[in-house]
Amino acid sequence: MSSTSRPTFGIGLVGHAFMGRAHSHAWRSVDAIFELPWQPVLSVLAGRDDGRAQAAAARLGWGSGVGDWRQLLERDDVDLIDICTPGDSHAEIAVAALEAGKHVLCEKPLANTVAEAEAMAAAAERAAGRGVRSMVGFSYRRVPALALARNLVAQGRIGTVRHVRAQYLQDWLADPQAPLSWRLDRRRAGSGALGDIGAHIIDATQFVTGEAVTGVSALLDTFVTERPHPDGPGTGPVTVDDAALFHGRLSGGGLASFEASRVAAGRKNALRLELNGTRGSLAFDLEAMNVLWFHDHTEDSDTAGFRRILVTEPQHPYAGAWWPPGHGLGYDHAFTNEIADLVISIAAGKDPEPTFADGLAVQRVLAAVEASAADDGRWTAIPGVQP
Amino acid sequence: MSSTSRPTFGIGLVGHAFMGRAHSHAWRSVDAIFELPWQPVLSVLAGRDDGRAQAAAARLGWGSGVGDWRQLLERDDVDLIDICTPGDSHAEIAVAALEAGKHVLCEKPLANTVAEAEAMAAAAERAAGRGVRSMVGFSYRRVPALALARNLVAQGRIGTVRHVRAQYLQDWLADPQAPLSWRLDRRRAGSGALGDIGAHIIDATQFVTGEAVTGVSALLDTFVTERPHPDGPGTGPVTVDDAALFHGRLSGGGLASFEASRVAAGRKNALRLELNGTRGSLAFDLEAMNVLWFHDHTEDSDTAGFRRILVTEPQHPYAGAWWPPGHGLGYDHAFTNEIADLVISIAAGKDPEPTFADGLAVQRVLAAVEASAADDGRWTAIPGVQP
Amino acid sequence: MSSTSRPTFGIGLVGHAFMGRAHSHAWRSVDAIFELPWQPVLSVLAGRDDGRAQAAAARLGWGSGVGDWRQLLERDDVDLIDICTPGDSHAEIAVAALEAGKHVLCEKPLANTVAEAEAMAAAAERAAGRGVRSMVGFSYRRVPALALARNLVAQGRIGTVRHVRAQYLQDWLADPQAPLSWRLDRRRAGSGALGDIGAHIIDATQFVTGEAVTGVSALLDTFVTERPHPDGPGTGPVTVDDAALFHGRLSGGGLASFEASRVAAGRKNALRLELNGTRGSLAFDLEAMNVLWFHDHTEDSDTAGFRRILVTEPQHPYAGAWWPPGHGLGYDHAFTNEIADLVISIAAGKDPEPTFADGLAVQRVLAAVEASAADDGRWTAIPGVQP
Amino acid sequence: MSSTSRPTFGIGLVGHAFMGRAHSHAWRSVDAIFELPWQPVLSVLAGRDDGRAQAAAARLGWGSGVGDWRQLLERDDVDLIDICTPGDSHAEIAVAALEAGKHVLCEKPLANTVAEAEAMAAAAERAAGRGVRSMVGFSYRRVPALALARNLVAQGRIGTVRHVRAQYLQDWLADPQAPLSWRLDRRRAGSGALGDIGAHIIDATQFVTGEAVTGVSALLDTFVTERPHPDGPGTGPVTVDDAALFHGRLSGGGLASFEASRVAAGRKNALRLELNGTRGSLAFDLEAMNVLWFHDHTEDSDTAGFRRILVTEPQHPYAGAWWPPGHGLGYDHAFTNEIADLVISIAAGKDPEPTFADGLAVQRVLAAVEASAADDGRWTAIPGVQP
Repeated sequence: MSSTSRPTFGIGLVGHAFMGRAHSHAWRSVDAIFELPWQPVLSVLAGRDDGRAQAAAARLGWGSGVGDWRQLLERDDVDLIDICTPGDSHAEIAVAALEAGKHVLCEKPLANTVAEAEAMAAAAERAAGRGVRSMVGFSYRRVPALALARNLVAQGRIGTVRHVRAQYLQDWLADPQAPLSWRLDRRRAGSGALGDIGAHIIDATQFVTGEAVTGVSALLDTFVTERPHPDGPGTGPVTVDDAALFHGRLSGGGLASFEASRVAAGRKNALRLELNGTRGSLAFDLEAMNVLWFHDHTEDSDTAGFRRILVTEPQHPYAGAWWPPGHGLGYDHAFTNEIADLVISIAAGKDPEPTFADGLAVQRVLAAVEASAADDGRWTAIPGVQP
Repeated sequence: MSSTSRPTFGIGLVGHAFMGRAHSHAWRSVDAIFELPWQPVLSVLAGRDDGRAQAAAARLGWGSGVGDWRQLLERDDVDLIDICTPGDSHAEIAVAALEAGKHVLCEKPLANTVAEAEAMAAAAERAAGRGVRSMVGFSYRRVPALALARNLVAQGRIGTVRHVRAQYLQDWLADPQAPLSWRLDRRRAGSGALGDIGAHIIDATQFVTGEAVTGVSALLDTFVTERPHPDGPGTGPVTVDDAALFHGRLSGGGLASFEASRVAAGRKNALRLELNGTRGSLAFDLEAMNVLWFHDHTEDSDTAGFRRILVTEPQHPYAGAWWPPGHGLGYDHAFTNEIADLVISIAAGKDPEPTFADGLAVQRVLAAVEASAADDGRWTAIPGVQP
Repeated sequence: MSSTSRPTFGIGLVGHAFMGRAHSHAWRSVDAIFELPWQPVLSVLAGRDDGRAQAAAARLGWGSGVGDWRQLLERDDVDLIDICTPGDSHAEIAVAALEAGKHVLCEKPLANTVAEAEAMAAAAERAAGRGVRSMVGFSYRRVPALALARNLVAQGRIGTVRHVRAQYLQDWLADPQAPLSWRLDRRRAGSGALGDIGAHIIDATQFVTGEAVTGVSALLDTFVTERPHPDGPGTGPVTVDDAALFHGRLSGGGLASFEASRVAAGRKNALRLELNGTRGSLAFDLEAMNVLWFHDHTEDSDTAGFRRILVTEPQHPYAGAWWPPGHGLGYDHAFTNEIADLVISIAAGKDPEPTFADGLAVQRVLAAVEASAADDGRWTAIPGVQP
Repeated sequence: MSSTSRPTFGIGLVGHAFMGRAHSHAWRSVDAIFELPWQPVLSVLAGRDDGRAQAAAARLGWGSGVGDWRQLLERDDVDLIDICTPGDSHAEIAVAALEAGKHVLCEKPLANTVAEAEAMAAAAERAAGRGVRSMVGFSYRRVPALALARNLVAQGRIGTVRHVRAQYLQDWLADPQAPLSWRLDRRRAGSGALGDIGAHIIDATQFVTGEAVTGVSALLDTFVTERPHPDGPGTGPVTVDDAALFHGRLSGGGLASFEASRVAAGRKNALRLELNGTRGSLAFDLEAMNVLWFHDHTEDSDTAGFRRILVTEPQHPYAGAWWPPGHGLGYDHAFTNEIADLVISIAAGKDPEPTFADGLAVQRVLAAVEASAADDGRWTAIPGVQP
């Protein structure tokens, strides 16, 4: 909707790599797909130097490009700052933005350390008191099939959760010649598969079950410890994990297993989630993202079985805004759905979800995983969570 | 790409229902996703009345809205007219646009009759002589998995095609209370499942095999012959088919079976294509659109089997322009891919594909299906095709 | 069950190739798996020469082996003759057996011609008057998933059938060097893919729907017309079809498409059946024979979808006699299930199903397919079936 | 094969519940399916009382039935004792049998404790010195798809194993009203899901990889701690685990995760195994037991993908002895394959596999899982295994 009587809502984007491109794609179209109370305006894109930022802005549909994100804090045409940078700059940008009165959308994981995440969550809470909102970008919450999964759990359709098995399997590091990048540098990325994709399955588990992980027992490994430099001769060390394996308990008493890997040959983007409860089960695989499998254990066993629900019906979450039944969505649509919810929440004066507190909760699990792995797999409770 | 030195390329859209929305979505983003030689500009949207057209234009991202498509013929800011109306107006709009020197993208099926399609193909050929280009919108050619299928066939990976089985199954008319619409009115839509979705599987078959259907034997049926009016009391007649079933031969000697239905309960958008050749096989289902199944029959049978190719690798058709491996595309991305090819072809002075002649070829098969069905299923050759 | 107080039931088997081996396997175990009123005794196996028949009898668990099936007609220890020979000898053996007062199980297809099948059905009807029973071996009726499918249709779970799509795809003739055999000789086999595997999908369709095929429009083809002799130099002609493609109508008004092929590369034994009705749908693939897919179209569309029913529950057809839930059956178990039903029916004085009349009904469809294919695909009604 | 010139090989079976029935089914047919050097004779079945044992013997095809297994030790017509009793009697029977000079096939898990298993392995080693052989019945090693998986790993087709994820999910205890049985009694069964089905995935992992589990970190749980008595009023305690979750390392450096559950609603017999190596990956699910998925990571990524191998080709393990390609096997065929290998090994004077030492290796992992779970998930090394 773009009637001239609606208020405009100026966006400033920080970062123009993979995530910046994906967010731009969503911002360009969200207003044509959803009925929004405010009209988003793609005001400005910030990068690390003016020239590249201006080129990216032109290409991605932003009004202008600037070489320093701090300029966004001052601009009247920026109501929200969308942070798409590596994890080591999240805390600084997000806190500054919130203090400058800008709403914030921050990519996941929220931060590289629990301390940073705590500072961000505290800043978000202070800002919320002034009506300034924040959200962490666990975009998979807005994949219709996962949103439906949460609804079915919340409705009691699978009863009490006894098992979660959550995996996020990729293979872009299976080849030992795949080069170094900031994602393999502990200082920039915080951790490896654990923080990048393990964070997604922790959040997805907590989101879908509505429960918290209460403790973990973990194992981390790096299979390829030296990799070639991307732009020159020689190799450098990989300082993050290639794979993370842990199991834990949920606050409702269930058991959960988690595995994140970047060396699972043939698995490209396999975020898989399976839940078994007292009354039913659910299963999902991001490589077939429009499908949710649901088993209703209360059915007559003559015809019981996992149902392949194509989550594209008008009454399914988000799907009604898009295309007719059976016309599936892709990876980027989750971002469009996410920012639609974000804009609607802010316009309604409500805190959008997932909050920075949700992001902090994930960060605490990540830290517990690293602590357990460093201590022989010993059970490590998540601070502040009631078992 | 949107460097200021590129020429602009003005677009005029006709229609703002389902197809108009889908095309708008593609036009809004194509320039940020693909490297285009010209910069598309969403100049104007035409509808049937000024008010609704202006509202749609504002909502869908077009510069302005007008109530009569004829105005587009005169405008300097319109280089291409994109026709998203029901089939009964395609011929009039397309021929007028081509004669006015506007490039044309016309939704499928090309027309409601062979005569109209012939006139359009003739107009397209004349226009091409003047450098004015045209394309018919069989968008599924730009689903990466189907484009890959065509490439593999063209490379000889499945050898000579012996079997095609093509189905397009939907269920939105399974319920006898589903209301009447223009799609159920022979005068507006030409035919029912046959022309709407049967056309897609005919084109997909001809596209993927690189062969022509040479003749058919057919059966049509309408299961629900009266349906309620959408906006008032009472019912009216359904004057098109609910389901079309036919088999035929391909110019390379293979056999093909086709089925299109709108009453296949539980199948939402199941365009399925399976090919068996002398050296291998392929299988596809649009309900899992990022996957192509490929069996290489020359492999050692110890490890031979249908491979589930996730068609999201950088070297796969179109996929490299979008997201990393495993991050799937959705229904609308095919339109974006389609218009990227369209703009690139026009800028290069080449006829984009599928041409109006391709659309006419599909129309001739549709007509042969209707003729055969009306004549007891008798074999009916497609005029102008060498068996 | 084998309490000594039960009557024994002597079996004579004719043939010891693939089918003879499969039937022997079933006869050896049926009494330990099912509770049978009579105790089957594997009395004698007949082949074409004494020596090979005796060796086969020893190997396959039969009491003795003889070189001429006619000897079985006289023996008191033979109550039932199980015919596992090529189709050209079915009529002679079956009619002689029935006239000699022996019950008969005859492999499918019932015969090579309608005339033979009519003679057999007449003989069966006469014999039934004397309490002598007969059954044609469409064993797939006893695959639990297909038996469940029939039950669900009979219970109205999918409503009125609108669509059947039935395929039986194999690839053992994809290679042009695959040698000649009796199955490629029209005199021995009657027809090719049509009678061998096409017969199965015709029977499966009529069985699961409880309806008859009323007419067909057909296309047959032989892709490889010369093949090497199996045991010597040179090649000989293939005189049967490689592939059969036809569509038809069912007595309840639905549409059905059929395809049988032995050149579908990569498909090994893909008997696929899909039904769409007014209230639901079913789908099956023999390559995953323990699974039936069921879509209940009356469910809330929020959670509707095709259910993967693992047909191994105690209350599923046949499954309770075997292993616990989830422990699947294989190809041969259908024969065991079949002969259990056969023995139980005969002991109860009832005609087992499928009857020779059912086999004749299939034969008439096969003949109509050949007639239609020879007459340009013209619609050909099945004699004696009410449309 | 049953030529009279072959030696006979007398079998004595102990137990006639589920496993006894399954083994009987295999013994009845193995000689007709495989070419065996010796002719198995189903001599005698032992149970706990004469009457029930005789009835079971008659029903299941055994020559006679006796009420005490000790009688088998003396009989000349018993060359091999097949132990199908609960785990608490395995050690006593197996050691006595071996000492009496009888070959032994013992159902899994080998024993209820490491001490018992050690005694059995020692007895087996002593017996082997005298030419008396023993095998533990991890029958899934003889599922063709898993045997093929092992072969592919051994051939280097997936390179060095980096990940194994092994699950065995059932749901027969999901219902809290499911009654008590010996399987829920720690004294009889040793443990719950862990020893019953967890043992299978440990053995399958070690078999397919050819590596040993070197240590584990574990979590056990019992969700339903009281259940009704099967034959009377009231409830009794469940003294074993419902679910076991552990991860570990393999001797080749890879990571492995394991989960066994009897409360995974909707999963009936889901033994799933997935391996990711440096050159490829494999995946298997017992609910679709004729299929092995194989990804060759060295292929061109244009057409790379997981292949669905239908493991029914003549050259696949075991498959050639059964039916033509595409005609799948069921649960019981693994037992037939197993005892064919057993008879062939014994006749050849070789130790069949898996040996009692293999069974002991599994038992040590089970014990380590229990120790780790009792000690806060602490990493627990498997004694005697080189990391």
